[in-house]
Amino acid sequence: MTPPPARTPKQRKQDTLYRLENDEDAWVSTADDEGGAPYLIPLSFLWDGRTILMATPAASPTGRNLRVTGKVRLGIGPTRDVVLVEGSVETLEPAELPDGVGDAFAEKTGFDPRRLTTAYLYFRVTPLRVQAWREANELTGRDLLRDGAWLVDD
Amino acid sequence: MTPPPARTPKQRKQDTLYRLENDEDAWVSTADDEGGAPYLIPLSFLWDGRTILMATPAASPTGRNLRVTGKVRLGIGPTRDVVLVEGSVETLEPAELPDGVGDAFAEKTGFDPRRLTTAYLYFRVTPLRVQAWREANELTGRDLLRDGAWLVDD
Repeated sequence: MTPPPARTPKQRKQDTLYRLENDEDAWVSTADDEGGAPYLIPLSFLWDGRTILMATPAASPTGRNLRVTGKVRLGIGPTRDVVLVEGSVETLEPAELPDGVGDAFAEKTGFDPRRLTTAYLYFRVTPLRVQAWREANELTGRDLLRDGAWLVDD
Repeated sequence: MTPPPARTPKQRKQDTLYRLENDEDAWVSTADDEGGAPYLIPLSFLWDGRTILMATPAASPTGRNLRVTGKVRLGIGPTRDVVLVEGSVETLEPAELPDGVGDAFAEKTGFDPRRLTTAYLYFRVTPLRVQAWREANELTGRDLLRDGAWLVDD
């Protein structure tokens, strides 16, 4: 079956921003800081137009890895319509999060880590690289954002 | 919205085996052996009833990480119906792969690394741990396979 023609860069950016705004979850890939052990779980997220906010228990493997390494790779969308984000990670205690941001996170994700007895941390991901593709014919031109800057105009 | 009741362990195992048999792609999470840099891409796979076979260019980040660390974590299915596999990885040169296995891989995935000019490696993943869940009410009982052995009968 022939895939549809490759999308224009502009269309890919629009589709990517739509996913960041509307998708519920991301596959969150992290690594420990030695030993080469990867970790992967899905987490809900909130996009604020510039960064991606997530939360997970402080004592979980993902929480530890994010805090220690400051590095993450996110996969958003199904495997044949992916948005891949490589990002740097800032760790935030719940008390450090502005109230409005905590409320927006709870509304978008349906859970509010500030109200749980388990100790959670928030993680703010700044995209350093964003790629998007559907099938093999979209591998060329998959880079949409590099070194933190969009390569494509709106 | 109330999620449906949690599936029985037997049903989860059946659903998991169905995904392993029929899903096209897995999210493949790997790490470099120092520095804590995660990597994540989707790859097609073939399940033979016991192991998962994948292929990717030898020189790619995923290829390097799999070869060097021998560790992988796979996410299969959408984020609200996940199968998570933690596995050990054996690296195979295309010439080491039995012909029938290479043919089965090409038929299932639609691409045949043995016929490409780019140098590919095959990777055989033996599951050490398998978990499956849909919503929060299925987090209890998510372990289906541990230390390489199924915890649930067929």
